Amino acid sequence: MLPAQERSVMLMKKIAKGTHRNVNYVSRLFQPQNVVPKDGIVKREDSLSKSQKLMHDLGVIRQASPGAFHLLPLGERSLQKLIRIVDDEMCKINAQKLLLPLLTSGELWKSTGRWEDIGEELFTLKDRHDRELVLSPTHEEAVTELMASIPQLSYRQLPLLLYQVTSKFRDEMRPRFGLLRGREFIMKDLYTFDTSAEAASETYKAVSKAYDNIFRRIGIQYFKVSAVTGVMGGSVSHEYHFPAAVGEAKLLICESCGYGTSLESCVPSECPECGHGFLKCCPGIEVGHTFLLGTKYSVPLKARFTTVEGKSDFLQMGSYGLGMTRILAAGVEVLSLPDEMRWPIALAPFTVCIVPPKEGSKESAVAHLAEELYHRMNSIDSFRNDLIIDNRCNMTIGKRLFEAQRTGYPFIVVIGRKALQPVPEFEVHHILMDKKASFNETALIEYLKEQLNK
Amino acid sequence: MLPAQERSVMLMKKIAKGTHRNVNYVSRLFQPQNVVPKDGIVKREDSLSKSQKLMHDLGVIRQASPGAFHLLPLGERSLQKLIRIVDDEMCKINAQKLLLPLLTSGELWKSTGRWEDIGEELFTLKDRHDRELVLSPTHEEAVTELMASIPQLSYRQLPLLLYQVTSKFRDEMRPRFGLLRGREFIMKDLYTFDTSAEAASETYKAVSKAYDNIFRRIGIQYFKVSAVTGVMGGSVSHEYHFPAAVGEAKLLICESCGYGTSLESCVPSECPECGHGFLKCCPGIEVGHTFLLGTKYSVPLKARFTTVEGKSDFLQMGSYGLGMTRILAAGVEVLSLPDEMRWPIALAPFTVCIVPPKEGSKESAVAHLAEELYHRMNSIDSFRNDLIIDNRCNMTIGKRLFEAQRTGYPFIVVIGRKALQPVPEFEVHHILMDKKASFNETALIEYLKEQLNK
Repeated sequence: MLPAQERSVMLMKKIAKGTHRNVNYVSRLFQPQNVVPKDGIVKREDSLSKSQKLMHDLGVIRQASPGAFHLLPLGERSLQKLIRIVDDEMCKINAQKLLLPLLTSGELWKSTGRWEDIGEELFTLKDRHDRELVLSPTHEEAVTELMASIPQLSYRQLPLLLYQVTSKFRDEMRPRFGLLRGREFIMKDLYTFDTSAEAASETYKAVSKAYDNIFRRIGIQYFKVSAVTGVMGGSVSHEYHFPAAVGEAKLLICESCGYGTSLESCVPSECPECGHGFLKCCPGIEVGHTFLLGTKYSVPLKARFTTVEGKSDFLQMGSYGLGMTRILAAGVEVLSLPDEMRWPIALAPFTVCIVPPKEGSKESAVAHLAEELYHRMNSIDSFRNDLIIDNRCNMTIGKRLFEAQRTGYPFIVVIGRKALQPVPEFEVHHILMDKKASFNETALIEYLKEQLNK
Repeated sequence: MLPAQERSVMLMKKIAKGTHRNVNYVSRLFQPQNVVPKDGIVKREDSLSKSQKLMHDLGVIRQASPGAFHLLPLGERSLQKLIRIVDDEMCKINAQKLLLPLLTSGELWKSTGRWEDIGEELFTLKDRHDRELVLSPTHEEAVTELMASIPQLSYRQLPLLLYQVTSKFRDEMRPRFGLLRGREFIMKDLYTFDTSAEAASETYKAVSKAYDNIFRRIGIQYFKVSAVTGVMGGSVSHEYHFPAAVGEAKLLICESCGYGTSLESCVPSECPECGHGFLKCCPGIEVGHTFLLGTKYSVPLKARFTTVEGKSDFLQMGSYGLGMTRILAAGVEVLSLPDEMRWPIALAPFTVCIVPPKEGSKESAVAHLAEELYHRMNSIDSFRNDLIIDNRCNMTIGKRLFEAQRTGYPFIVVIGRKALQPVPEFEVHHILMDKKASFNETALIEYLKEQLNK
């Protein structure tokens, strides 16, 4: 057997025996990169967004078919971080997570009129018994039917907030910009049920607060604007946008008070909110949308509850969406340089990348410091399984630092010359701030903890 | 406004202000129960499995359409626990998580012949451009095409283990038994890529070990049997089964050495493995299936890598499935009593249910102990967000204990008479063991920690 094959067989044997200690190594990471020769011709460059190009070239996503993308390990890690933030904020407002089937009956969509209203964008199919099914783009119908099926739903059980994070489908005429406008994507959708319009309005405020928290934790400047309710129906609606040139929404934002709207045509004007500011036109990527629905779905689907007087009344509903995969791409779109990917710190696939010395260099005498640092940090909650070592030590530190920077790990720790000192020091690069500094191990960990808590 | 409405509005206001402290309460849990009158007539009882009936009646699942079920909060919590176990064991064997689109192109399935082989069980549809799509039941084609698209895949990057946990679809002729045989379900599917048949075989052993770990952590007795490769193709295959009367697989299991097979017709005979045991016929629910695929998919889809000698060769593949929602239902099927649900401890939606005293009882003087215990335990990693208080204190302790037992929370802590002692004691019920004991707070927590580590 050849040495390389033997090595791989040995690794799996070690793993099977359980004698293998798990460390995230760049050499094992599935991150297929697109190496474009410097003078190579890149096709269709203009039709790609910056985030799509970078996420593809740096092995975060890969196109499966038009509008459908494989989320590779780096992308999946980032998605999981976003899900944890959402779960955490949903928990704080007593929202409960569930999972509704993606396939819903065509009848359901006909009963609310959306079979026709959404039209060609709805993916439909027939099962072997010739029954019509919809591959759901959203779940108002399904969740309302679920509520209608509950025997004796009482006012005592309300408000009820139910959400899920699942694949959604929309047969876009022209899917584009990678995860920004796909035919299949991950959405978080929350549905709320209240006893009265006033109670629903309080719930709307509580959810809006949770959305603010989520976006604050993501850390990218966002605009919350009044919006049209459109095919969703209802009375009150807001959109959340990340400002970006590639964004397809045209917003009017007040430079003074931050008021924004997507309701008016994009003509600069005076702010109706503060009176003295000026509304400026600004392109945005829609990353969230909230609706107060009233009884638009509960009436046709007969979703009722028993009031305190023992009468039957229709549920007052709200619907709240977050484009999860779109948030990932939009974050990268906003923060990245033309040739280097950048992530919001909270969503980076790995927060810290450790670069040990090159093989055969003077510094290689202290190469062991890399794994020591890894294991010490890995034992701390806030860094657990959020570190990676670039162990391709046949490459220079410079080359690996450059690659880590392109991939956009927020903090890169280099084990270089200063690591040879009696008290070894590590060079840490803060990528978003474009700063570097040197610390001993304890101070380094304190510094990184501080940065994460900012 | 009416008092009840006011209360719900106040709650949302409190939440919006962030002054609300989050506790899991039974009163707020979305667990719609089916109250069947004692003399009521239950339709189609015979065609339901025990797990389906219990999970429906106790608000864990609810049917959306034939073969498709809503996973309600208790079910979703259980699923998340199973996912965490799987993620943990996958991490140990260096398997990387990704997310492949659920919609795959019809062309892909035609290129491997499975468009015809799977036939009517394949959910297919056409997009607005009249292109054929498949709602994937499994992802061998998709992941192999992904690998084929990687430029210059090298032997150095192998073995590569890639997995996901996603919705899968199969247009069953007769879906039945709830989550045990649905048309839409959650599967964990892992695909492995190796340089040689020998290396693939070592990978197969490592994954099999991980599967053993997963099933050991779930804690239900299981059978691993040799199996046919069927429509999946390949050479070696094993199935994992939970023994249960409702199981549709017929297995031959050796009473002496545990050897099992699903290859032979179910006739009792001598064990070919140990020679002295006796093979007994036993029905099983298939919960996992592993395959060594060889080059069945890599050849038609041209998935190659560069060998150490710089030549091009086809990838050696493996495919490994776990029926995630089926494992939940099968676990409940195996452990439950006819009228009471039981969960494997590792998968219970909440591990501990705390029952405070009834309002107005003598014990209500120490009702505060419930929340104190909750917060103390909630600050310990192994119990965090895994506790629930049955705060419906207008109900007797007995009634709530009975309900908690029916829902199958593994440990129920009652704050009863002994909680009035100078050093308060709590009564803990170990539901699976049908035992109870009393402890002071510190001893109780130690006892529960021990039980979780068993």
